[in-house]
Amino acid sequence: MKKWVYFFEEGNANMKALLGGKGANLAEMKRIGLPVPNGFTITTEACNAYYENGKNLGEEVNSQIFEYLKKLEGITGKTFGSKENPLLVSVRSGSVFSMPGMMDTILNLGLNDDTVEGLAALTENPRFAYDSYRRFIQMFSDVVLKVAKYNFEHALEAAKRNNGLTYDTDLTVDHLKALVKTYKDIVMKETRKPFPQEPEIQLIMAVNSVFESWDNPRANIYRNLNDIAHNLGTAVNIQEMVFGNMGDTSGTGVAFTRNPSTGDSAFFGEFLLNAQGEDVVAGIRTPKPISELKEIMPEVYKQFIEISKKLETHYKDMQDIEFTIERGKLFMLQTRNGKRTAPAAVNIAVDLVEEGLIDEETAIMRLEPDQIDQLLHPTFDEVDLANAKEIAKGLPASPGAACGQVFFSAEDVVAAQAKGIPAMLVRQETSPEDIEGMVSCVGILTSRGGMTSHAAVVARGMGKCCVAGCGEIKVEEYAKQFHVDGLVVKEGDYISLDGNNGRVFLGKIRTKEVELTGNFGKLMAWADVHRVLKVRTNADNPRDSKVAVKFGAEGIGLCRTEHMFFEEERIPVVRRMIVAKTIEARKEALDLLLPFQRADFIGIFEAMGERPVTIRLLDPPLHEFLPHEDKDIEALAKDMKISAAELKSIVNDLKEFNPMLGHRGCRLAITYPEIYQMQVRAIFEAVVDVVKRLDLKVKPEVMIPLVGFEKELEILAPLVRKTANEVLEEHGLQIDYKVGTMIEVPRAALLADDIAKHAEFFSFGTNDLTQMTLGFSRDDAGKFMPEYRKKEIFEKDPFQTIDQKGVGKLMKMAIELGRAQRPDIKLGICGEHGGEPKSVEFCHAIGLEYVSCSPYRVPIAKLAAAQAAIKAKNGESKTGINL
Amino acid sequence: MKKWVYFFEEGNANMKALLGGKGANLAEMKRIGLPVPNGFTITTEACNAYYENGKNLGEEVNSQIFEYLKKLEGITGKTFGSKENPLLVSVRSGSVFSMPGMMDTILNLGLNDDTVEGLAALTENPRFAYDSYRRFIQMFSDVVLKVAKYNFEHALEAAKRNNGLTYDTDLTVDHLKALVKTYKDIVMKETRKPFPQEPEIQLIMAVNSVFESWDNPRANIYRNLNDIAHNLGTAVNIQEMVFGNMGDTSGTGVAFTRNPSTGDSAFFGEFLLNAQGEDVVAGIRTPKPISELKEIMPEVYKQFIEISKKLETHYKDMQDIEFTIERGKLFMLQTRNGKRTAPAAVNIAVDLVEEGLIDEETAIMRLEPDQIDQLLHPTFDEVDLANAKEIAKGLPASPGAACGQVFFSAEDVVAAQAKGIPAMLVRQETSPEDIEGMVSCVGILTSRGGMTSHAAVVARGMGKCCVAGCGEIKVEEYAKQFHVDGLVVKEGDYISLDGNNGRVFLGKIRTKEVELTGNFGKLMAWADVHRVLKVRTNADNPRDSKVAVKFGAEGIGLCRTEHMFFEEERIPVVRRMIVAKTIEARKEALDLLLPFQRADFIGIFEAMGERPVTIRLLDPPLHEFLPHEDKDIEALAKDMKISAAELKSIVNDLKEFNPMLGHRGCRLAITYPEIYQMQVRAIFEAVVDVVKRLDLKVKPEVMIPLVGFEKELEILAPLVRKTANEVLEEHGLQIDYKVGTMIEVPRAALLADDIAKHAEFFSFGTNDLTQMTLGFSRDDAGKFMPEYRKKEIFEKDPFQTIDQKGVGKLMKMAIELGRAQRPDIKLGICGEHGGEPKSVEFCHAIGLEYVSCSPYRVPIAKLAAAQAAIKAKNGESKTGINL
Repeated sequence: MKKWVYFFEEGNANMKALLGGKGANLAEMKRIGLPVPNGFTITTEACNAYYENGKNLGEEVNSQIFEYLKKLEGITGKTFGSKENPLLVSVRSGSVFSMPGMMDTILNLGLNDDTVEGLAALTENPRFAYDSYRRFIQMFSDVVLKVAKYNFEHALEAAKRNNGLTYDTDLTVDHLKALVKTYKDIVMKETRKPFPQEPEIQLIMAVNSVFESWDNPRANIYRNLNDIAHNLGTAVNIQEMVFGNMGDTSGTGVAFTRNPSTGDSAFFGEFLLNAQGEDVVAGIRTPKPISELKEIMPEVYKQFIEISKKLETHYKDMQDIEFTIERGKLFMLQTRNGKRTAPAAVNIAVDLVEEGLIDEETAIMRLEPDQIDQLLHPTFDEVDLANAKEIAKGLPASPGAACGQVFFSAEDVVAAQAKGIPAMLVRQETSPEDIEGMVSCVGILTSRGGMTSHAAVVARGMGKCCVAGCGEIKVEEYAKQFHVDGLVVKEGDYISLDGNNGRVFLGKIRTKEVELTGNFGKLMAWADVHRVLKVRTNADNPRDSKVAVKFGAEGIGLCRTEHMFFEEERIPVVRRMIVAKTIEARKEALDLLLPFQRADFIGIFEAMGERPVTIRLLDPPLHEFLPHEDKDIEALAKDMKISAAELKSIVNDLKEFNPMLGHRGCRLAITYPEIYQMQVRAIFEAVVDVVKRLDLKVKPEVMIPLVGFEKELEILAPLVRKTANEVLEEHGLQIDYKVGTMIEVPRAALLADDIAKHAEFFSFGTNDLTQMTLGFSRDDAGKFMPEYRKKEIFEKDPFQTIDQKGVGKLMKMAIELGRAQRPDIKLGICGEHGGEPKSVEFCHAIGLEYVSCSPYRVPIAKLAAAQAAIKAKNGESKTGINL
Repeated sequence: MKKWVYFFEEGNANMKALLGGKGANLAEMKRIGLPVPNGFTITTEACNAYYENGKNLGEEVNSQIFEYLKKLEGITGKTFGSKENPLLVSVRSGSVFSMPGMMDTILNLGLNDDTVEGLAALTENPRFAYDSYRRFIQMFSDVVLKVAKYNFEHALEAAKRNNGLTYDTDLTVDHLKALVKTYKDIVMKETRKPFPQEPEIQLIMAVNSVFESWDNPRANIYRNLNDIAHNLGTAVNIQEMVFGNMGDTSGTGVAFTRNPSTGDSAFFGEFLLNAQGEDVVAGIRTPKPISELKEIMPEVYKQFIEISKKLETHYKDMQDIEFTIERGKLFMLQTRNGKRTAPAAVNIAVDLVEEGLIDEETAIMRLEPDQIDQLLHPTFDEVDLANAKEIAKGLPASPGAACGQVFFSAEDVVAAQAKGIPAMLVRQETSPEDIEGMVSCVGILTSRGGMTSHAAVVARGMGKCCVAGCGEIKVEEYAKQFHVDGLVVKEGDYISLDGNNGRVFLGKIRTKEVELTGNFGKLMAWADVHRVLKVRTNADNPRDSKVAVKFGAEGIGLCRTEHMFFEEERIPVVRRMIVAKTIEARKEALDLLLPFQRADFIGIFEAMGERPVTIRLLDPPLHEFLPHEDKDIEALAKDMKISAAELKSIVNDLKEFNPMLGHRGCRLAITYPEIYQMQVRAIFEAVVDVVKRLDLKVKPEVMIPLVGFEKELEILAPLVRKTANEVLEEHGLQIDYKVGTMIEVPRAALLADDIAKHAEFFSFGTNDLTQMTLGFSRDDAGKFMPEYRKKEIFEKDPFQTIDQKGVGKLMKMAIELGRAQRPDIKLGICGEHGGEPKSVEFCHAIGLEYVSCSPYRVPIAKLAAAQAAIKAKNGESKTGINL
């Protein structure tokens, strides 16, 4: 016969898979001699068997439960269902990973109309007994019988109101007896059956209920979201009750072995006297800080401190502990690794290493890479925040906190900033024309567009706070105002944005910069030692490049040259280039652009030093550089001294149905090679300058975008090399440089062997590769993405986390084909995924050399890369495809 | 020592690869005893060796040439370079496939200042000798020395002018001697070297020149366009001259063994007395019909007829023959399979089968599938056409000829048609809103958009003549006129379009329907026997379905349901559905649409009988059904009784950056399942009607578009089945139907095994699959496609012929994955490629079950399918990827 049930004494902390987290930890505490109420655990295997049997516990499991219950009676000297000395138990779920949505806890199980009297007599405390009974009825009815809780809460409120009482504790035993009767009537009315009086039936119903809850929708969604297998099952813990509500020598509480908010190594926690656990959670009475226990029960306090230290040393991590004191005696009810804020996580991990409890690898694995994002951006002042008025909620498009006066156009933002006004850019959506405004503002709010809309992508790249796709607000750019729920916010009004959660507030909230503490630095240094993937940054200008270097970037993986085109002095020249009717006119304009581009590259090379810099040649369609509104076209035509009709016709001719799939990337250079020639010349003139002037061995890598056909590269790679060599020869220099391509068109991935003939490196442009492979325009996907996520068509937004099964399969194919053709080909990724931890893990697994991400995500990527390497070493990598 | 040179006697018709087409045929004619002037062939291997040796003939080849020249002197009794009895030769290229762009012919080689005198004495015809010499100098200088021909033509014209003469033949021997001198001076001036006098040097220079011409740009482009390998090389034929210009008993001509225009089995050809071949080509003198030769030289004519018959019987195909008569003696200079028109091709192929010369398979292989397109569309009256004024040229977007009065909006076209006016729709570009106008017009002309623009695709689908992307015309829709080159064409003016070549004419040209002759029917029946691929049609309405059945379609591969939405009575309901704010309002509108859709399906099922009908559920984004211009929106808002602002805001909300990758296809049904529910209900109510009323065993196949994720189908396939079964159960019917999906998103192809779990069939939507795999928007690609083709980045437009290396690789992957998951999965293609012969061959090779194409291309696809099967049987299939 299979063993389905374990006494706590039979288990230990390593048996989580079988006993669940809670059960294994209770067993472990028992094992190391801590005061844990006696009990046993029904295994996760029993849960799986339950589902295999068509939701039936089965005879074996059933009989083992009662066998162990008998043993428990023997140990405790109490009897289940006894009037004299009744055994009461708690029933708690406990899966391997803690999971919201599942049935959690039932206390006081075993009480009925008879045993309650026994409990009253035994404890000489009828009030306590009936209070426990009414709590039990409510809890059991709620979670097992599915009688909505509010029924009982209303009855409780009515009882207090009718008796003129304020607190639950004011209720007398008679009140409570009456309440028990009312509760039972509610059950009868709602379920058409009496409240079950047989403790054995109560127990089996509760166990069934825990197993049921494993498969409820919320639990399923949670597992999907957190990559938890659906076949793990949950265990059930049956434990003798201890009572914190047996008077003023009893109590219950929760404590952390270190401060979960700051990481300080000081105890932290709170407790309530004469209470059961639910009272702490319900927040009706205000718990006291744990330090006060020292005065009230010095012995208990001392014992608790010792146990806590023992637990932390034992588990080598900060513990979150639940305890109960029953008439002066301390019991441990649960211990687990405690949740913590980002700063606390960093401090605790480093402290534990320095205290010798854990090693560096463990410390690295303890951090959630995404969590440390908080450390890299400003946050709101907590006092101001508590008083702030939230007016809307959008997508948390780019983290950080920002506060400023709203403006509705890029020009107005630029003008405001020039006057020293902190300006918040508010638009329906942003476009490349807004770039100067985006640079100048303190934060960005848009009413349309998703997590990968223009605003979101650019803001993240800049490390600027952005809330996007805030559909609740109606932006009227022409009227310089937005509406939200009856409120009108006008130009110059203050709003505050929280980019971490998408919240929009009316008025000012002060922000504070979080410093990169010494511990953070230490952790990053450890990550650097353990990771294999290099981490570069996506940066288009010297400012971002410097930030990235500060954050530890090892090169630039993507320097977009088009953002440079938008600056005020340049855009007219760019436009002249675009409207040129002859190649000579176009070249003339390009000649004027060259010095600007050269200066940009000089600045970037200076910032990056001898780190490799991958520069992508012009990528966007030309119409992005022209205005589209009639009045803007007319103004521009005037400036350019051509007729508005002519300019309109040019704009019209350039208009595209699907610009994403249009005349852009290397296609521009196939039709206008002179554009890339100018850019390459600018790059290498910058190289020459920096090499000669600063004696820096710069490492330029020229990247040709949107290649889909071998022939494109066969034409353009030599064009790049020829131009580069011309410049170098003109100055008598010889330097190493690389010419490569982005892999962002599915066809390029499918034929990567052909492409690799002409490319010294591949950089996966997973933004576009995802768009084309999935057929999703990221600017438009917002319309159906919410429904897609709701229906679990994909678990994660494929623009945030690489779609490993689809896009990942293509990447793997491209890597294999590319390496077969050119074994030393350099492989990296420059899509936004390069800064997302799960994607970084995937990039490590498929063997990329580097990832590249926005400057502010460099530390995150480094940490994720270190974790990926450690996981791989330990055989714990998990990818969506077979590698 | 390798054999580089072959006497004609040493070769035969099977040695084309080595001797080239011309050389092998000359050898073959020699072999079967026809009068062919003596000569030899330098092999294609010598050509390849020439390139391998760095463009050097090499000693071996050189010495073999002169060895054979010696032998030729022996046979002819003439001596190369002799003053007394000079041997003169022609030098002609001859590759395996006939190829424009290469050096073709040099006649009279061996003439110089000495041998010309010998020739004069020998023939007692100094005029002939000097005429031959001046021809030779011109020809040699042009093709070998690269002295532009006009130099000589000017000199010839001057000689005639100065001497007051009209015809070349009027020039006396003295005139010709002076002209020879002038010609030599021209050569001296242009090349700074005298005209080469040594015949051996002339010969080697000419051979080199032929080999050079193999690699010239025009030849390379031609090979690329026609899939001819670049390493085949060309042979060179050296042949003793015979002279058609030795007086009135001499002559030269070209003849066909059957009429190349109609296929009639009567001789057809023309000749010139006292002329060399170039005179026939030059068109200065008008040749006489071959029948006149009968009177002039009855014996020669009789012999020629006999030889021609012998050749046709020998080659089992209509022959195109070059001949020369030298002083009453007939010589054959070339024979090859003759080019022919589509009707001639059909008639000749069938006649040859009936005459027992070839079998059915050979007859099928003789036809160019694309060519028979001509047989399926109206053509212009030839007399009218000869007098017509061509005003512009666009892309031949959809074949046929059309003539009508121009109108500039769909509404105007519809109104005109209602009055019985043949209306031509002229627009900058068409959009789905124009669909009614497109149905009503006689032809379509657009100034923008490529071969796969909306206008082109829809017109081809309808079999309607269309010229697209005619950039020369400036369409002013608001002014109801277009400009072209100073001309203004106004509403109501007549124009005529030739969709076969993109020509646009001013005024009326009568059109005639070409009948599907009996021979065509026979050929199609043979094709049906030999093909394996089934051929279905893309048809959206009963009318097209009927046409397709007439053309032999075996089912519908793609019935788009959205075109049905645009009809006048429906579009308001569709729009009401789109702007609905609640699911109830949407369902209400859908309920109104249901009877329309049901009626459509009834008509289609009736037309198709028991053939399978694949119906694609709604695919395009909803904004396609709404107007976009302010004034149209205002008008619609009025109709719909909502405010213009509200409607504008709805239109604005639905607007997409990249509609191709937006909220469309199955994504619509994920967000609005009720749309597909209505469509499925309409389909199955139609099924019920037709089954019950007509007792037809209809075979519906419901196709879900744009699937990329398994889960999409996991949600939608059951929704389709549930709705279908509901309808069937309501009527107590049980019928077989299938539910499947399009494979058009790259991700679906990559994960076809997962997709196949829920799909009973795959239909490759290669239009969208190409767009996404290549990252090309077909509506926008026009801007760079010309440059791409010019630079040979791809050989063929990937929207016309499947990109086998890229898209084809994905298809192959999907087929393998799909079959592995579901061995009996039904596989087809419904992209436009389904009607393109090379793509059909590919579809056969990768094992699809059927192709689907527009009704008018069904016969083409059938023929292509038969050819593909025959090629595969004979091991002659050629695909771009390894299968």
